[in-house]
Amino acid sequence: MTEMYGGIEAGGTKFVCAVGSDPDNIFAEARFPTTTPSETLQAVFSFFRQQEREHGKIKAIGVACFGPLGPIPGSPAYGYITSTPKQGWANFNFLGSLRQEFELPFGFDTDVDGAVLGEWRWGAGKGLDSLVYLTIGTGIGGGAMANGQIIHGLLHTEMGHMRLPHDLQTDSFKGICPYHGDCWEGLACGPAMEKRWGQRAETLPVDHPAWVLEASYIAYALVNLVLVMSPQRIILGGGVMSQTQLFPMVRTKVLSLLNEYIKAPAILQHITEYIVPPDLGARAGVLGAIALAEQAYRA
Amino acid sequence: MTEMYGGIEAGGTKFVCAVGSDPDNIFAEARFPTTTPSETLQAVFSFFRQQEREHGKIKAIGVACFGPLGPIPGSPAYGYITSTPKQGWANFNFLGSLRQEFELPFGFDTDVDGAVLGEWRWGAGKGLDSLVYLTIGTGIGGGAMANGQIIHGLLHTEMGHMRLPHDLQTDSFKGICPYHGDCWEGLACGPAMEKRWGQRAETLPVDHPAWVLEASYIAYALVNLVLVMSPQRIILGGGVMSQTQLFPMVRTKVLSLLNEYIKAPAILQHITEYIVPPDLGARAGVLGAIALAEQAYRA
Repeated sequence: MTEMYGGIEAGGTKFVCAVGSDPDNIFAEARFPTTTPSETLQAVFSFFRQQEREHGKIKAIGVACFGPLGPIPGSPAYGYITSTPKQGWANFNFLGSLRQEFELPFGFDTDVDGAVLGEWRWGAGKGLDSLVYLTIGTGIGGGAMANGQIIHGLLHTEMGHMRLPHDLQTDSFKGICPYHGDCWEGLACGPAMEKRWGQRAETLPVDHPAWVLEASYIAYALVNLVLVMSPQRIILGGGVMSQTQLFPMVRTKVLSLLNEYIKAPAILQHITEYIVPPDLGARAGVLGAIALAEQAYRA
Repeated sequence: MTEMYGGIEAGGTKFVCAVGSDPDNIFAEARFPTTTPSETLQAVFSFFRQQEREHGKIKAIGVACFGPLGPIPGSPAYGYITSTPKQGWANFNFLGSLRQEFELPFGFDTDVDGAVLGEWRWGAGKGLDSLVYLTIGTGIGGGAMANGQIIHGLLHTEMGHMRLPHDLQTDSFKGICPYHGDCWEGLACGPAMEKRWGQRAETLPVDHPAWVLEASYIAYALVNLVLVMSPQRIILGGGVMSQTQLFPMVRTKVLSLLNEYIKAPAILQHITEYIVPPDLGARAGVLGAIALAEQAYRA
C-alpha cells in the first residue's frame, strides 16, 4: 500500500517540505526561509503536524540537506550538519532535533544523494543499479549509486572538487575554489563562469566560446566518473545545465575524450540516453527527501 | 565449515591456479604460460582434476582475469574476454569453456576486482565496506568496493585512464597511452617512467626527481578517487609501488591537494593507515580469484 512520508529539502537559503508518497501523490508542499535552526525547524514541525491532522500519520521523514554533514548511521557525526560557514548551523544536530519532535524512522543524507535516490526511484535512473547525479550551478556536487545503493564510504562524495586538466594557455582563469583554486567547481560552477567572462552565465549568448569551454570541463569530469565508477547513466542538473545547448556539446566531447576506449554500446551508440537531464526537475530535492524517507521506512 | 575453492589468476603472460579456502589454507598452486586458450585451459583443467583427486571436491571456481572483459552476470558479454589485442583471446568465451568442463558456481571478474575482493576478505581492507585497490606497474588499473560489493556498473572500472592535471611546463612528456596520450596511465605507469627518463624506473635512485613527479600524479588520482567515491581505504600495489619511498610522498601530496577540505579523521589524522600497501602481496591475484569463487559459492 501507499504510505505517506515527509520530505525536507534543507537548503542554505530555503527549506522545502512536502508530504506524499511519490511524484504523483504529493498532498502538500511548503517553503520556509532558512533562518536559525530552531525557528526553521519550528516551521517544519508545524507544517508536518498540520498535514498529519489533515491526511493521517506520516510513516517516516527524509532529510536531503546541504552539507557537509554526517550521512553514516552509527557514526558520531550522523545526523549533524558539520562544518558549514552558515551562521548557527555548524555542528547542528539536525536529526536529534527531529527525533525530539517525531518518533519515526528517519533518512538523512546530502541533497545530491537525495536527488540521485529520487531519480533512481522515479526519474531518469529508474530500473538501473548504478547512476550518477550531478548538479552544476552555484556549486558543483554529485551523488552516486552502485549496486542499487547510495555510495557513502568514509563520508560522502564531493565530486565537484575533482582535479581536471586545466590548460592555462587556453584558459588563464585561475579558478575560484577557496580550497583548491582550479578544481572542477573552481573552474566551471556558475560563479566561476561569471567571474571569468565578466557577466552572468545565463546572459552569455548560446554561441559564446564560454559554452565550449564549460562543456569541455564538464566532459573531462564525466570521463573520469565513467572510468572510476562505470555508471549506467549520468544525470546533469543544476542552473548551468538549464543551458540545454550544453548537452550535445558535453556528449560529443565525452566521446572524443574516451576515444572508443570503453566499448560499451550505452556510450558508443546511445550517448543521448547516457548523459541526460533529470526527470524530476525542480522537484528533485524534495522528492529526493521523500525517497530517503521511503528507504528509511522500508529498511 | 571450510570449503575448497579453485582460483585462476589469468594474466596475459601466465596463469596462476590454486586450490584452497583462504591465505592460510592453500593446498596447491601451479603456473602455466598463457599460450592459446585451449592449450592453457587444458593445463588448468588437468591441475584442478588432479587436485580434486588429492583433496576432494572443488566447490566453486573464481577467475580473476586480464581485460577488458564482461563481468556482469546476465549480460551478453558475461564471461568473455572482449577486445584484447592478445592473439586468440579476443571474444573468447572463458566461462563457457570452464562450464563445459566443470558443473560448478563460477566467479568471473577483472584481476583488479579480484584483488580488491581478496584484500577486503583477508587483507588490508578487512572489515571495511568501501575500498579501492590500485595496481601501478606495467599499466594502471583499479577495482573498488562500496557498501561491501564490487562496483561494476556499465562494465568495469578503468581508473588508470583518468585525466589529471598535466603541467607541460614542469613535465613536457606527452604520455604513452595509445588512446589518451597523457591520461594517468599514459603519464605514470612503469613504461611511461622508463620512456620519460630513459631508464627503467627501478634503476632510478630513490632521490631522483622522477619519484616526486610520480608521487604527484598518483596523488592527483587518489584525490579524485577520494572525492568521487569516498573510500574508507586505498590500497596501492603493483611494481611501481614496490618503490616504497613513494608512500610517504604520495600521502603528503594527497593531504596538500585536499587542503583539509575533507574533514575526515581517517585522512587528516591517520593517513598512514588510509593509503597503504596490499597485505596479500604477490598472492593478491590468485587469492582474489579464490575470493571470487567463495563469493560465487555463497551467492
